[in-house]
Amino acid sequence: MVELACDWGESFGPWRHGAGPEILELVTAVHLACGFHAGDPLTMLRAVEACAGAGVAVGAHPGWPDLVGFGRRELACSPAETTALVLYQIGALAAIARSLGVGLSHVKPHGALYHQAAGDPALAGAVARAVAGADHRLAVVTQGGTELDHAAREIGLEVRREFFADRRYRADGSLVPRSDQRAVLRDPAEAAAQVSQALQLGTVATVDGPELAIEFETICIHGDEPSAIAVARAVRAVLDAHGTGAQTR
Amino acid sequence: MVELACDWGESFGPWRHGAGPEILELVTAVHLACGFHAGDPLTMLRAVEACAGAGVAVGAHPGWPDLVGFGRRELACSPAETTALVLYQIGALAAIARSLGVGLSHVKPHGALYHQAAGDPALAGAVARAVAGADHRLAVVTQGGTELDHAAREIGLEVRREFFADRRYRADGSLVPRSDQRAVLRDPAEAAAQVSQALQLGTVATVDGPELAIEFETICIHGDEPSAIAVARAVRAVLDAHGTGAQTR
Amino acid sequence: MVELACDWGESFGPWRHGAGPEILELVTAVHLACGFHAGDPLTMLRAVEACAGAGVAVGAHPGWPDLVGFGRRELACSPAETTALVLYQIGALAAIARSLGVGLSHVKPHGALYHQAAGDPALAGAVARAVAGADHRLAVVTQGGTELDHAAREIGLEVRREFFADRRYRADGSLVPRSDQRAVLRDPAEAAAQVSQALQLGTVATVDGPELAIEFETICIHGDEPSAIAVARAVRAVLDAHGTGAQTR
Amino acid sequence: MVELACDWGESFGPWRHGAGPEILELVTAVHLACGFHAGDPLTMLRAVEACAGAGVAVGAHPGWPDLVGFGRRELACSPAETTALVLYQIGALAAIARSLGVGLSHVKPHGALYHQAAGDPALAGAVARAVAGADHRLAVVTQGGTELDHAAREIGLEVRREFFADRRYRADGSLVPRSDQRAVLRDPAEAAAQVSQALQLGTVATVDGPELAIEFETICIHGDEPSAIAVARAVRAVLDAHGTGAQTR
Repeated sequence: MVELACDWGESFGPWRHGAGPEILELVTAVHLACGFHAGDPLTMLRAVEACAGAGVAVGAHPGWPDLVGFGRRELACSPAETTALVLYQIGALAAIARSLGVGLSHVKPHGALYHQAAGDPALAGAVARAVAGADHRLAVVTQGGTELDHAAREIGLEVRREFFADRRYRADGSLVPRSDQRAVLRDPAEAAAQVSQALQLGTVATVDGPELAIEFETICIHGDEPSAIAVARAVRAVLDAHGTGAQTR
Repeated sequence: MVELACDWGESFGPWRHGAGPEILELVTAVHLACGFHAGDPLTMLRAVEACAGAGVAVGAHPGWPDLVGFGRRELACSPAETTALVLYQIGALAAIARSLGVGLSHVKPHGALYHQAAGDPALAGAVARAVAGADHRLAVVTQGGTELDHAAREIGLEVRREFFADRRYRADGSLVPRSDQRAVLRDPAEAAAQVSQALQLGTVATVDGPELAIEFETICIHGDEPSAIAVARAVRAVLDAHGTGAQTR
Repeated sequence: MVELACDWGESFGPWRHGAGPEILELVTAVHLACGFHAGDPLTMLRAVEACAGAGVAVGAHPGWPDLVGFGRRELACSPAETTALVLYQIGALAAIARSLGVGLSHVKPHGALYHQAAGDPALAGAVARAVAGADHRLAVVTQGGTELDHAAREIGLEVRREFFADRRYRADGSLVPRSDQRAVLRDPAEAAAQVSQALQLGTVATVDGPELAIEFETICIHGDEPSAIAVARAVRAVLDAHGTGAQTR
Repeated sequence: MVELACDWGESFGPWRHGAGPEILELVTAVHLACGFHAGDPLTMLRAVEACAGAGVAVGAHPGWPDLVGFGRRELACSPAETTALVLYQIGALAAIARSLGVGLSHVKPHGALYHQAAGDPALAGAVARAVAGADHRLAVVTQGGTELDHAAREIGLEVRREFFADRRYRADGSLVPRSDQRAVLRDPAEAAAQVSQALQLGTVATVDGPELAIEFETICIHGDEPSAIAVARAVRAVLDAHGTGAQTR
């Protein structure tokens, strides 16, 4: 069973961002912004309502306190600050979800926090402790082999390793950065092919080397690309054909 | 058994505000700022740690999103926005507290939100629904007879009616506003006398009329007055002499 | 000569809002968000660049510090706070504009600040003092007859009285509030007709009484309606046919 | 003539921070927080009023948009974002000052922005362009030899090189970081001796090497140390004895 997930709930106040509710018919889980890089309390509440209606699992997507930068700019927070702000965001979403009878399934750090926690053991530990402190039944979503993967397993958290349907890979397993034109796969057929290969052969092509072995429990598509719906539909079809993920939809 | 409580955790980032941890030796509960009018995630975490160490009950003190105005300026939020932002703040504190093994005991709205919810049935309902949605075992702290008192009882929440040790009253039961020089009782002996009379006779003097009958389950002192510690000590002595509140300390 | 203006620059960080740069071909002035209710420094800089390129006059559009509420929620700021925050926002935009060789032409309060300053003499004076303190050559944009109109004239500021092309009026000269379905004129032909009548006869229809005499120096269209471009084009055509506004384009 | 300056105006909303107005009797210039890491519009206005009353020169002290971190955490802003946010903050303070008849004298970046701009040519250029764009008569305050020193001179801005009375130096000219216990000189006599030596011999001791030649036009003391007033008084006495700085007081 493979999860298909996307970032969601990234509006703020009067501003819309990302795919509309139609994407909830295609994914099995979402990573919901928690107010620091996007999302506000009412946006979060409406987003959880929509997810509950569509039967989609809800995870927290905490980020740096950097609204104008959408949480994508590196910020030098201490581990103690990081634990506290991740706890804060998970709890905020959890209470909103609970008021609607919804429990959270997982936590995936957003943007620069995701990348910093992947590479820095101290931040990875800080994030993992926050997740465990909020609720040790919450899974952590991160790429396999990262510092966050290690830190989360070490304290007994479930880890869901993530495969990106719509991003190109480098030989070291990292993603081609967005500054490189090749970073994002916007052609639904290409994304579908990348997922199909990953499911059947357990490998992914890289831009700078041989194919890479890849293991994963969740597939991510980016909800804020204009191609998001088309990509989601194509990847969904691959999963259905492969007999994966059918149960949760 | 009467609770003695104060606002606490009202620092933000590098800025200190309110009484230090010594007040935790005198009160039995605190209302902790949740990041919207004061408090930040790490400040909240450190505050809950201190409360846990001192055996003091922790309540959420949600406010309007108005840091620079300390949540004291009226803001025209819709009921839906209000429910969402109260849920958000309760949840944020609850997760931080949970990571330290601490459960929340109650919710008291802060500042302008406190006063607006006291007088406006729609906002009162919005706050009550947020508390119940987060956790229906949480008590609501408000003055007896307010719209929030009614709304909270109506949906089955426990209400702890609040008596102010250090504020003067008007004949209609409301507080003398801070714009009036007589608003705050800063003399510990006067505050002690007001509490003593309330405990023994069930009445309080008013500035513009006869004495007023008063019922309450919790006594509030303001943690951000320079006189806070002295007032707390004097009121604590009254409670101890009266045989009230002894059990929880 | 009548100015045709719209709100602009209302994006924030990654979030887009309002009409694109094509509207700059139709208006002669814009009211630019200054970072408190919308806009961020880089968004403001890009917006001023676009205005300079299109030969459109730039005014400051200061609002309450309420990003999530888009400055549309009433906030109880003191006059002193209001003067300071309007000065702050005008100055921020002025420096950005100056770095591009652009001077500001006017100031129009946004949203709830606009309405509160229209009706409250103390706030009106606070706004007028801020404008005069920043630069007494700046004009103030407000509806004729408001408290802000009076306060601005009293301290010698130029006032540009505003007529709304796309809003319906009440007999007392106020706008039909947005909560009323009739509030906004989205049909370009209706907006054009309202402007044509105002220019030729000096009157406007009202929803609850007889026609109203109206005087104005600037016409406002709302840049964030989907119909904004079509309405702007229709009103522009009326102005051109009427021989008004031609010079500045 | 040597300027004696301190950071000031670092309160926010209800929160106080740093030395009180008594320090204005000792310094000749201040670096005023502009709302992003500290300061709010009304705090800024009151601070400029106090400076005007004391005859102290006012400079802008722009920082990263990181209130909770007091602008001390590194943030990965692009040069374009940095230029815009420095322009924004300078302009905001300039308009507030102008409303009181006060002109700005200089700009000194705060905290992490200060250090990042000192070491990164792209950020240094971004800051310098912002200062020049706001008003090319503004001086830039930075340590001699930094990237910001170079970038500012290159576009024709006056640079005031800064000497720290109350910080210890390393042999490479950088400051001992605050994480090192020796970082701050809190003994007024030590600070006075360090300034005296710098004025008379043009050298400063270092913690890890020989004495260092030092040139400067402005001396900084930190307004937020409890020792600030005593240090300021001791350094002031050195300057007066040395016949420097007398004119401006």
